[in-house]
Amino acid sequence: MPYKFSESLQNLRMSPIVSISEKVKTLSPEFKARTGKDFVLFQRGEIDLPTPAFIREAAKQAMDAGYTKYPKSGGEDVYKDAILKKLSHFNKAGNLSRENIIATYGGQEALELAFKLFEGQKGVGFAPCWSVILENFGPYCSTNFVQVPLNSDFSVDYELIRKELKDAAFFYLNTPQNPSGKLFTKEEVNRIVELCKENDVFLISDESYEYITYDGRDHFSPISLDYENIISAFTLSKTYSMTGWRLGYVVTRNQSISRLFRLGDYTQTAGVTTFLQYAAAEALSNIEESTRSVDSMMKEFTQRRNALCIGLKQIPGIEFDYPHGGFYLFPSFTKLIPEKLSGTARELYIYNKLMEAGIATVYGSSFGNHFADYIRFSFSATKVPVIEEAIERIKKVFA
Amino acid sequence: MPYKFSESLQNLRMSPIVSISEKVKTLSPEFKARTGKDFVLFQRGEIDLPTPAFIREAAKQAMDAGYTKYPKSGGEDVYKDAILKKLSHFNKAGNLSRENIIATYGGQEALELAFKLFEGQKGVGFAPCWSVILENFGPYCSTNFVQVPLNSDFSVDYELIRKELKDAAFFYLNTPQNPSGKLFTKEEVNRIVELCKENDVFLISDESYEYITYDGRDHFSPISLDYENIISAFTLSKTYSMTGWRLGYVVTRNQSISRLFRLGDYTQTAGVTTFLQYAAAEALSNIEESTRSVDSMMKEFTQRRNALCIGLKQIPGIEFDYPHGGFYLFPSFTKLIPEKLSGTARELYIYNKLMEAGIATVYGSSFGNHFADYIRFSFSATKVPVIEEAIERIKKVFA
Repeated sequence: MPYKFSESLQNLRMSPIVSISEKVKTLSPEFKARTGKDFVLFQRGEIDLPTPAFIREAAKQAMDAGYTKYPKSGGEDVYKDAILKKLSHFNKAGNLSRENIIATYGGQEALELAFKLFEGQKGVGFAPCWSVILENFGPYCSTNFVQVPLNSDFSVDYELIRKELKDAAFFYLNTPQNPSGKLFTKEEVNRIVELCKENDVFLISDESYEYITYDGRDHFSPISLDYENIISAFTLSKTYSMTGWRLGYVVTRNQSISRLFRLGDYTQTAGVTTFLQYAAAEALSNIEESTRSVDSMMKEFTQRRNALCIGLKQIPGIEFDYPHGGFYLFPSFTKLIPEKLSGTARELYIYNKLMEAGIATVYGSSFGNHFADYIRFSFSATKVPVIEEAIERIKKVFA
Repeated sequence: MPYKFSESLQNLRMSPIVSISEKVKTLSPEFKARTGKDFVLFQRGEIDLPTPAFIREAAKQAMDAGYTKYPKSGGEDVYKDAILKKLSHFNKAGNLSRENIIATYGGQEALELAFKLFEGQKGVGFAPCWSVILENFGPYCSTNFVQVPLNSDFSVDYELIRKELKDAAFFYLNTPQNPSGKLFTKEEVNRIVELCKENDVFLISDESYEYITYDGRDHFSPISLDYENIISAFTLSKTYSMTGWRLGYVVTRNQSISRLFRLGDYTQTAGVTTFLQYAAAEALSNIEESTRSVDSMMKEFTQRRNALCIGLKQIPGIEFDYPHGGFYLFPSFTKLIPEKLSGTARELYIYNKLMEAGIATVYGSSFGNHFADYIRFSFSATKVPVIEEAIERIKKVFA
């Protein structure tokens, strides 16, 4: 009997962030014993706030009301209708109907299906890039994924994109971006969509952090533009502290695609947990409660971002601008890395120094080929006093 | 730009059962207007009982306790530990640990990953066969899926299996079986596993209906046998009326496979909703409540099965034995179909006659190549008085 296991499964890798967290579990007690202090965790993309009560209550009610039967293929009407309203008022995307929407298990399943759609073909996206694209979706779907670097100030080099799009099937855009915190402006999104149009390339738009923007800036959604071949992945995870609920959705004006997504989602999971879709509908529809919880989260995140930025700005050699979106800071440490270092020794140099000081971060090479001198700090689960403690430690490391 | 959509997505089909249910939605009001009576629904694999309260309460408690963060890769320890206990006492499968288990979105994701593992290779399974294998998993994973027919009394022809296993990667076994209601005996399972061993073929075991057995018969699990290359898919859907919760798990002694499944599940969905895993753990662990609810369900299903069987036995030409498991009856109507009919006209002949009488069923060709003269009746959501009403109508149809 001749068998071999699927190559696409065998090519999958676990995110480096998972192994960093594992390492912290080992190092943490040693560090505590040696210094009497706790590890500072900047490595996770997890939010330390609870899911708002009004969403939990909606889940309980739907569960007790008997919405425990098989979900409708593609998603429950109540969820889709709430999504349509949200798309219209928040994303400024009109002229959409239930057929354009598919409920998914978080943004993850939405993006996995989008990559699956272009199995074996060429995709293009910016570096730095969310690690799951590189470790999971790319290998799973045998994507030839080409990274186009942002400039060192995270501005866009359109000529680089234009060159790569010529023989590509899709462009992957993540705004606000993980790990850079870059929020793509309306003008940038417009130019990227124009380039996709010109080259007949599909746009996969990952808007996981759409509600997390700073300094009065607004998120701009590609799906608001007049181009049929946009596939937009959304999630409730970051907006409502619902990472463990696994609730998201995908939106596309291209009905051939939404039909394939319905079939793909059905095949993989038979659909998204029915009563949780009712909770998701409440999260999106109850504007008053939703605004209150997002505002409160953003007040906290703004304080954390500012504490981290103000602190790190005091340390010569760490270079960055304030991030405009998301809950990550991605500074360059080039000036603090010995010039002669290269390869893995270089990639892990800053990360290891911080780890020794009881500070867990993610090294830049986790996010692709071009930003290996950078370090990702997530402030999603790190309160201001802990950030301030970390700053003091980092000062000592580089004193 | 050269693009084409993924063939494996394009080859997917929606189950005929979905279109039958759609058709019923249209026909039902017409039928009611004409006859004053309701449609009888025998087409669905959905259970009409509520999810037991103790499971709903466990979900609520876990949600409020803050288990709303990202799930652990592969599944929460509390869920895995409950599964291990259940495997030991119910499935008689010992010598397993957390590493052998992966939490999945129902049996569906477990089976989809199992088929994915053997992408592009040959699989073998019995006809009749669950339609999702034929319409979804097979095409999605480019499986060359060969159907080996059960005999007309649903006994096994081992020589047919032996021939087909020679160049196969896996055998798919579903016990108790959908749609036949066949419960494979310990001896049958043993001989099938021996054949797999001899041919170095993996066994994918689908045990969705494991708790639904009749007349004092016991379900026998392949995973209790000494063969490493068994992949067993389980679900809470049918045992606890939890079809809409999407909770299941896969078990294998082969740790290379469980590693690939962890990565595959993570890639597709980032894992199973955290607090729902706590509810699943309670469903499996609370033996007292669980036994009470399963017993009560089985009392009801037994009455329905008997009412349906006793009724149909009164109609000459409908041939079947009492099913030993599941909630389906799959009788042959060969003697009631005009001999000269063939093709689609033959396949839909009985189904259409029943549909005209306000009775929705599923035609046998939905379940593969070999049982086109058969009709599937599901009694999962049809109470005894409604079954009795249906019997009266069927008597008239074939009078």
